[in-house]
Amino acid sequence: MSSSLNIGIAGLGTVGSGVIELFANNLEHINKRTGKFLKLTSVSAKDKSKKRNININDFVWYDDPCDMAASEDIDVFVELIGGSDGIPKKSVEIALSSGKHVVTANKALIATHGFELSKIAELNSSLLNFEASVAGGIPIIKSLKESLAGNKLNKIYGILNGTCNFILTQMEKTGKPFAEVLREAQKLGYAESDPSFDINGTDTAHKLAVLSALMMGIPPNFSSIRIEGIESIRSEDIAYSKKLGFCIKLLGIVLKKDRGYIQRVHPCMIPVTSSISRIDDVKNAIFVEGNFIGPLVLEGLGAGSGPTASAVVSDLIDISKGNFIPPFGCSLENKNNIEKIDTERFGPWYIRLEVIDKPGVLAEIAAELKNQSVSIESVLQRGRAPGECVSLIITTHETNEKNFKNAMEKIKKLNALTEPPCMIRIENF
Amino acid sequence: MSSSLNIGIAGLGTVGSGVIELFANNLEHINKRTGKFLKLTSVSAKDKSKKRNININDFVWYDDPCDMAASEDIDVFVELIGGSDGIPKKSVEIALSSGKHVVTANKALIATHGFELSKIAELNSSLLNFEASVAGGIPIIKSLKESLAGNKLNKIYGILNGTCNFILTQMEKTGKPFAEVLREAQKLGYAESDPSFDINGTDTAHKLAVLSALMMGIPPNFSSIRIEGIESIRSEDIAYSKKLGFCIKLLGIVLKKDRGYIQRVHPCMIPVTSSISRIDDVKNAIFVEGNFIGPLVLEGLGAGSGPTASAVVSDLIDISKGNFIPPFGCSLENKNNIEKIDTERFGPWYIRLEVIDKPGVLAEIAAELKNQSVSIESVLQRGRAPGECVSLIITTHETNEKNFKNAMEKIKKLNALTEPPCMIRIENF
Repeated sequence: MSSSLNIGIAGLGTVGSGVIELFANNLEHINKRTGKFLKLTSVSAKDKSKKRNININDFVWYDDPCDMAASEDIDVFVELIGGSDGIPKKSVEIALSSGKHVVTANKALIATHGFELSKIAELNSSLLNFEASVAGGIPIIKSLKESLAGNKLNKIYGILNGTCNFILTQMEKTGKPFAEVLREAQKLGYAESDPSFDINGTDTAHKLAVLSALMMGIPPNFSSIRIEGIESIRSEDIAYSKKLGFCIKLLGIVLKKDRGYIQRVHPCMIPVTSSISRIDDVKNAIFVEGNFIGPLVLEGLGAGSGPTASAVVSDLIDISKGNFIPPFGCSLENKNNIEKIDTERFGPWYIRLEVIDKPGVLAEIAAELKNQSVSIESVLQRGRAPGECVSLIITTHETNEKNFKNAMEKIKKLNALTEPPCMIRIENF
Repeated sequence: MSSSLNIGIAGLGTVGSGVIELFANNLEHINKRTGKFLKLTSVSAKDKSKKRNININDFVWYDDPCDMAASEDIDVFVELIGGSDGIPKKSVEIALSSGKHVVTANKALIATHGFELSKIAELNSSLLNFEASVAGGIPIIKSLKESLAGNKLNKIYGILNGTCNFILTQMEKTGKPFAEVLREAQKLGYAESDPSFDINGTDTAHKLAVLSALMMGIPPNFSSIRIEGIESIRSEDIAYSKKLGFCIKLLGIVLKKDRGYIQRVHPCMIPVTSSISRIDDVKNAIFVEGNFIGPLVLEGLGAGSGPTASAVVSDLIDISKGNFIPPFGCSLENKNNIEKIDTERFGPWYIRLEVIDKPGVLAEIAAELKNQSVSIESVLQRGRAPGECVSLIITTHETNEKNFKNAMEKIKKLNALTEPPCMIRIENF
């Protein structure tokens, strides 16, 4: 053992407390594996007097994380505050600029400012590690940066948000409606009191932007991601998808194409035989495909105190060993050739339409689809209720996204429709 | 880019050719990610004039890999010959002793001589990397050494042999007998002409010894592993297991216990709902559990030219980046506290007995089990054929391994038995 590596933690929520607990339990084990003694020396959070399950009396306290980031007392600044801008960003910039290493679990920060932060890190020979920012304990970032570095990757998709996966799984298992399952998720601590970022796909998109950047060796490009959430999914959709041999998952997807890359976040119907279909509740899973390794799937707990702390500590151990690898695996150039999704996808769809059961409705809908060369694979109308509202389930053959959307714009305007259609992409993953 | 890292490959079989092909395809991509130019300079194999799909004219040829290992022309010696002793071992020793780094895909070598080789590496400040020795492209070794280093691990189990998994999967899918499926596997190149090491569990045990050493931070202890192969499994067993809600997989298992560790390799019945039950054909999967990360599953292609080459190249990239991590993640001490399996396991069993259908047979068998306090969970006799041979399927409740084996020794001697019993452990993985 040469010397100690002094660590300061900013943010003492779920993850911060987990890191302190991990050190309390496993430090001897860890020091056996590192060339330096890891030492937690300092902490910073909003309220020093807040009641906590962890003992912070042995640490130097900072009211302002930026002061801790600037301090000479620490070698590594661990940012566990969260959020893309403001203090988390400022404190990370201060730490990197003063030659400190940074570990963060902040996907929003890396997805939004990862490029500029990586440049500050490079300039100062600092390390910026963010294993915990995507999929909790699953070592997907190290795998992409190091283990798969010999491969050209052409595809990554994954279940990256435990809250959404819990909701979809519970809707499937219990048949309960979205709102009720969401309330249960909130009670269990799986969803925030304001769950918007989880439910509307933003959280998944933050993580996807990080994975895409690693896959492509280019700056994260969060703003180009087409995002759809799971708000419009009903238990009927899940029941129908089961009948068709599918299950519904919210996926982040990045695909390499000849002219660029496509990033998208949306609910997907995937075959029940897919390698990620049985990933249930708060678990995460990521599928990666490379030109030599072929397919690789990693699955585990995508959130929570223990798994996320495990990822933070793996970054700290890497730093203690002197593994100098650029934040995104290679030095990034400021090029940006990510294409938008709309005109690119060519694939089948599931549509649920709530319509008045009267003669001619299907003919009208079929005509609009035909006008845009969208070919119908199957139609299912559950029950008959002349003059009343019924569900019409349509699956299409592979089709151009633009044509499909054009047809659906027309269909939305039909008088027979009683509410906006539910449209889910079918992916043969 | 500072300078080039000169690489020599010994062994130009499936993996060696794969590495050369990977460099031919992905070198520009790789050099973007490393601080040094990786450069294949030298090769060695048995027969220079052998017809190959790869072009080796640009490389310096060595008839003797030991000469290449000693040569000043290379910085890294890549051993892809295979086998635990003789030339592969000698050449690796020469390379390490002369301060070169070594990358190997040789599980038999690491399982048998990993400790002494790691000591030579440490003495000479050389790296000894062996990601390709276990589960092909799956980055399980790096994950154990680095990503999970902050965790105390208590359990690893995995499908580590693609040949066996292919045979078991095909027996299940087609109902064909073992011998016929084995012949098909040989035709497809999934099994060697002498498949003994795959079929009898030796290959799985070699890999398990490597994983156990990484998990426990102790020398690999291949000789203490209790090994059973899949030779005695019949399609009937697979059919019965399906009826009971299980599937049969050959697993390598290491469990941490209070007093030490248990390593075992044998066929298991695992629930069809298990996270690794649907890993089919030549795929591999590994389950790891740590005290903070919780469960983690990695799955992918466990063998073949591309995936294994991907793992070899990831080791080379690590070396080029100067990631100095001891072969087993930490410096090993020569302690050895691995316990044998026999008296340790406490769990349920599946038994298939081929018996003459006559009154009193079940009573005799039940009495022997009762004498050893083995409690029967279910009994199934398929059909009735008085005086002729029938299959008797018994599952037991959890039981001590020693008691169970004692009872079975007595049952084996019963006159009614027409052949040795088939016994498979049921694991609730």
